[in-house]
Amino acid sequence: MLGQLIKGVAAAPGINIGHAIWWRKEKPVFETRSIQDPGAETEKLDKAIEKAKEQIEHLRNIAAERMSEEEALVFDAHLAFLDDPSYTGEMKNRINSKKQNAEAICQEVTEEMSQLMASLDDEYMQARADDIRDVGFRLLVILTGKQPFDPSLLKRGHVVVAEELTPSDTAQFPEGISGMVTARGSKTAHAAIMARTLGIPAVLGLGKNIDQIKDGDVIVLDGDKGTIRINPDKETEEKIRQQIAIQNKAREQALKEAKADAKTADGKRIQVFANIGSLGDIDLALKNHAEGVGLFRTEFLYLENDHWPTEQEQADAYAKALKAFQGRPVVIRTLDIGGDKELPYAELPKEDNPFLGHRAIRFCLANPDLFKTQLRALLRASVHGNLWIMFPMIENFTEIRQAKQLLEKCKTELQKEGTPFAEEIPVGMMVEIPAAAITADLLAQEVDFMSIGTNDLTQYTLAADRGNELVADLYDAAHPAVLRLIKMTCDAAEKAGILAGMCGELAGDPAMTKALIGLGLHELSMSAGTIPEVKQNVRQVDSQKAKSLANELLGKSDGEEVRKVIQQRG
Amino acid sequence: MLGQLIKGVAAAPGINIGHAIWWRKEKPVFETRSIQDPGAETEKLDKAIEKAKEQIEHLRNIAAERMSEEEALVFDAHLAFLDDPSYTGEMKNRINSKKQNAEAICQEVTEEMSQLMASLDDEYMQARADDIRDVGFRLLVILTGKQPFDPSLLKRGHVVVAEELTPSDTAQFPEGISGMVTARGSKTAHAAIMARTLGIPAVLGLGKNIDQIKDGDVIVLDGDKGTIRINPDKETEEKIRQQIAIQNKAREQALKEAKADAKTADGKRIQVFANIGSLGDIDLALKNHAEGVGLFRTEFLYLENDHWPTEQEQADAYAKALKAFQGRPVVIRTLDIGGDKELPYAELPKEDNPFLGHRAIRFCLANPDLFKTQLRALLRASVHGNLWIMFPMIENFTEIRQAKQLLEKCKTELQKEGTPFAEEIPVGMMVEIPAAAITADLLAQEVDFMSIGTNDLTQYTLAADRGNELVADLYDAAHPAVLRLIKMTCDAAEKAGILAGMCGELAGDPAMTKALIGLGLHELSMSAGTIPEVKQNVRQVDSQKAKSLANELLGKSDGEEVRKVIQQRG
Repeated sequence: MLGQLIKGVAAAPGINIGHAIWWRKEKPVFETRSIQDPGAETEKLDKAIEKAKEQIEHLRNIAAERMSEEEALVFDAHLAFLDDPSYTGEMKNRINSKKQNAEAICQEVTEEMSQLMASLDDEYMQARADDIRDVGFRLLVILTGKQPFDPSLLKRGHVVVAEELTPSDTAQFPEGISGMVTARGSKTAHAAIMARTLGIPAVLGLGKNIDQIKDGDVIVLDGDKGTIRINPDKETEEKIRQQIAIQNKAREQALKEAKADAKTADGKRIQVFANIGSLGDIDLALKNHAEGVGLFRTEFLYLENDHWPTEQEQADAYAKALKAFQGRPVVIRTLDIGGDKELPYAELPKEDNPFLGHRAIRFCLANPDLFKTQLRALLRASVHGNLWIMFPMIENFTEIRQAKQLLEKCKTELQKEGTPFAEEIPVGMMVEIPAAAITADLLAQEVDFMSIGTNDLTQYTLAADRGNELVADLYDAAHPAVLRLIKMTCDAAEKAGILAGMCGELAGDPAMTKALIGLGLHELSMSAGTIPEVKQNVRQVDSQKAKSLANELLGKSDGEEVRKVIQQRG
Repeated sequence: MLGQLIKGVAAAPGINIGHAIWWRKEKPVFETRSIQDPGAETEKLDKAIEKAKEQIEHLRNIAAERMSEEEALVFDAHLAFLDDPSYTGEMKNRINSKKQNAEAICQEVTEEMSQLMASLDDEYMQARADDIRDVGFRLLVILTGKQPFDPSLLKRGHVVVAEELTPSDTAQFPEGISGMVTARGSKTAHAAIMARTLGIPAVLGLGKNIDQIKDGDVIVLDGDKGTIRINPDKETEEKIRQQIAIQNKAREQALKEAKADAKTADGKRIQVFANIGSLGDIDLALKNHAEGVGLFRTEFLYLENDHWPTEQEQADAYAKALKAFQGRPVVIRTLDIGGDKELPYAELPKEDNPFLGHRAIRFCLANPDLFKTQLRALLRASVHGNLWIMFPMIENFTEIRQAKQLLEKCKTELQKEGTPFAEEIPVGMMVEIPAAAITADLLAQEVDFMSIGTNDLTQYTLAADRGNELVADLYDAAHPAVLRLIKMTCDAAEKAGILAGMCGELAGDPAMTKALIGLGLHELSMSAGTIPEVKQNVRQVDSQKAKSLANELLGKSDGEEVRKVIQQRG
């Protein structure tokens, strides 16, 4: 017997093996009872609130450190609820009016408030309903003193099994967890994103089949295929351990070789860069021998604050990144707010289709003062390293010209103030709107480099929201239409004598390396973890053969066909 | 003096002159008082509700007849509120519990409910809040017997002036209204859409300047420039009346000439078709000498019903259209639901970016039984005329193949049942997703014709929601990227030996006729009203010169530059 095989959703890659541990989430049990002393009961609640705050702040710090500031944001929402008069305030009112124990009141108010929010036909409010339940659960656990699951039981080598995992849960994973398996969740679920960030395989969405897993079972996860195997026989287990050993050895070897710059077999230089989402990512990028940063996202500065970040705050952060990379290029992208990213302190208008709305450069050009703060901060930091500035969501000439004019204005200001900045700062644009790729020949005349953002480019080109499960099968960056736009962009850049790179997810897909080089890319930027493997792949590429492969792919009917050819010939 | 000039938003084209009439909307005045007999008061309310229903049903019929079924839908929402237990039901409860008069209770409940809805951060609910206010206002007017404005005062030649105009208002316009002017509203406002449907010029968004208009003032509207002039001197008025006469004469002349088919000056045949959104549009299309229907939208059948329309209901509607056009081509597009269109009886999931979501062919292929009902209805109707079937939102090979397979399945079924259908039914696709245009050479092998939908194609290519005012300046179908995609599609169609047409708004822009022919289009489909002018324009085109114009446009930097060249050379 090979052990039972169950199919789920492939949510984070890699193969691994480990012992199952169930993270159970039954509600703590308590009795509803009348109380004599509302004052004492309120005090008990107050203490629980304080303790919950401590716990959440702790989780927030862990998340920010181990993942990113963006991952940590959800805990700010939790903290806010604990101070909300209509939530904890209402609990205190009811303890006084109903004279019942804090546990009962806490459950009642949490239930009411989360149901109210969930009933609204609004995804944002529904997510808040989940947050309220999470906070209410935490309060109940503290009030009853009954922890249904103690995260300190989690050890190296465990495969965490749960109905669902929240950010509060995954933030408490110790180092060395082998994988995660859940009943609910998709590739775009929060748990999936965190598994990828932590570099552990994840198979989600097992549904009711998950009940076949018992604590202590040996679980083999295949995060590439989206399968798990329960209690394989010794022979199978041995085989899989060998596979894992090979996988790990290959990773080590790749990491060792990654120190050297990447060149194709026929000597063409391909720069392999890292994408960075917060200062915490820098270390991982350096460890994986990134040759520079192809996309430094600046949103974290805006998301982690409760105010618009000042020029000084920004300049400090940019300087840190530039210094860390010691003269290697760091492409910093100006603010890409809007779309799926919201700012708690800014009243951004609600839009029907935010991905097709007032975001990124559109927002920045409409708010020149905010934009200038960032541009001045970038210029001030530029003396500390090799800064490249990149504008997101460019759709036409006017936008790029306006952005460059603002940059010049900032330079003039700084000159007058006697503040130094680097003399040569390349200015580039993201190619992530179809129009930009289609008219790349025109836009290339205005910039020093172009970087293709495949995530947005794919969703617009295919009219398929990358976060929408209903169209997940349509969203495919390997669709020949996307590949054709990549080629148009590379051709235009070459003709104009400027650099063409890529910083979307496609760049980090090792299977695509050869095809991307064949399409004409000179720089690939990706999550740090995949750099070693991609560098290895680059070294095996013959650039002429890659070109002929790329040309064949452009004539295929869809992404699936493209991948088939790559598997056969790539 | 030329009369005072005020600038607003150009919301519906044309020049006209007329006398101002203010449609004022002050709330009816009444006193809050205690009542003795809640039964009598409830009866009074019940009668008012009945009367409101009659009024709204009447408005609904007018709107459906004079505009379209889609325009009429808002009144169904109004009717639903009148039966809603949490609205009118709550009023009755409060009459009993608070013992106050119906007017006071009606105002109180309307206020509470609309505020609750408006407070939700959700555009759909905010629109419902407006609906509730509209309904509540109607009830109050009936209860108090005080009509603040009597629509029967509106006469031919009037320019309607208002803070804002609702669908309830515009549905009551008599024939021959000269134009509309409002303080609030944009090009995408409901009032703007209705003005264009009714064919009267509209200047919206005048803000506080509107207060300068007094009842009886002579108003000159320029719906192309978005200006109004108040009380021009006699000389100016005379000049404008001459302009209007020229405009009207040109329209008449164009209409007369429209009887003949359209050919370019050098003899190339260009088919000028009508877009049709409901059976009510057929007459207007025939009057304007449409040579066929380039886009017959089928959504009205689904939107106007409280159930999925049956095969018989659909077959009857399609047969009516096919018969009316007596053998001329009628391109019927299969259901394009989702995106901005919702169905009251279907639980469509709420999406973050519905335009990038599960709509049109995606929805239909996921619901094959519903889709087959429509395909069978189309086949059954095909014996009554020249039916062409068109699939919307095609993004890849698989979709078009699956759709064609379902169609074949339906044919086999009907054959078995002995039900006749036409032998030759051309099957085509919309090109409205960038991917479809970019890979048109591949997709052209699978279809008999392609029709470019510029509205969607533009919003995806430019990543700018066509309904979002914040990005209204970015949404421009004349952007060179869109023109390049049009050319790619036409080239691919020509190479494959199939027809390429266009059914988006761009096709009906008379200024673009020459450029579109130059890009390679053989068929243009548009709102009926613009057919005569476009036919005239076709006749003036030299197709070689059009080609060279088109090529020049492809190299321009943005839509504005494109339009400049067209104005100079077009």
